[in-house]
Amino acid sequence: MNFDHAGIATDDASGLADRFATLFDIPVVHEETFDGMTVVFLDCGNGYFELLEPEDGGTIARYLDSDGPGIHHLALATDDIRAALDRVVDHGVEPIDTDPRPGAWGHEVAFLHPKSTGGVLVELVQH
Amino acid sequence: MNFDHAGIATDDASGLADRFATLFDIPVVHEETFDGMTVVFLDCGNGYFELLEPEDGGTIARYLDSDGPGIHHLALATDDIRAALDRVVDHGVEPIDTDPRPGAWGHEVAFLHPKSTGGVLVELVQH
Repeated sequence: MNFDHAGIATDDASGLADRFATLFDIPVVHEETFDGMTVVFLDCGNGYFELLEPEDGGTIARYLDSDGPGIHHLALATDDIRAALDRVVDHGVEPIDTDPRPGAWGHEVAFLHPKSTGGVLVELVQH
Repeated sequence: MNFDHAGIATDDASGLADRFATLFDIPVVHEETFDGMTVVFLDCGNGYFELLEPEDGGTIARYLDSDGPGIHHLALATDDIRAALDRVVDHGVEPIDTDPRPGAWGHEVAFLHPKSTGGVLVELVQH
């Protein structure tokens, strides 16, 4: 698999996107409202930063309450998310999503429980 | 800049490297002891996961004590780390390293304070 993106929880996606674009020359390439969040993708050329700002409640809002803003998850890209998910489950990983589901930017996604992956919340993603 | 790697704090770099390699087909490409840590790089094809296991004390050990294992930082690659560091400081970022310093794998690195970057610990790295 390849690196796809790092998901970052924030209470100001627009402001942080501007700041990252300015500081690091990584432009905003996609922005949408998805699943009760403002989602902004910045293009690092070989992968993305995905900024996640909750509008009202939900997983990211609870994360911000408990941990504050910062890195939330790492996503790996696959051409066959069903096969990738079956493979990790066969190796004992507990999935958060037992089936791939629609994610931001029209992708299919499946999250894996961090207790199975060294404390890292991993997202599988198929474009 | 481009994505370079995600740094992951762990108390078992060797075990987690084997697990990630098996689950995600991302092979180990470099391993060393650096700055009191076992450091293992896994190759995602377009960037790396850097596993950091402290041997005895230090920043990562304190991070593991306070936050547990998980994603620690994100690194962006630049061809001119001195210029990149000057640029972000000019934009008001507080550096942790005021000058580039030797990092793992023979790279030059400089960390930026997460309070300047939305709670994200950012590392600039020049190969």
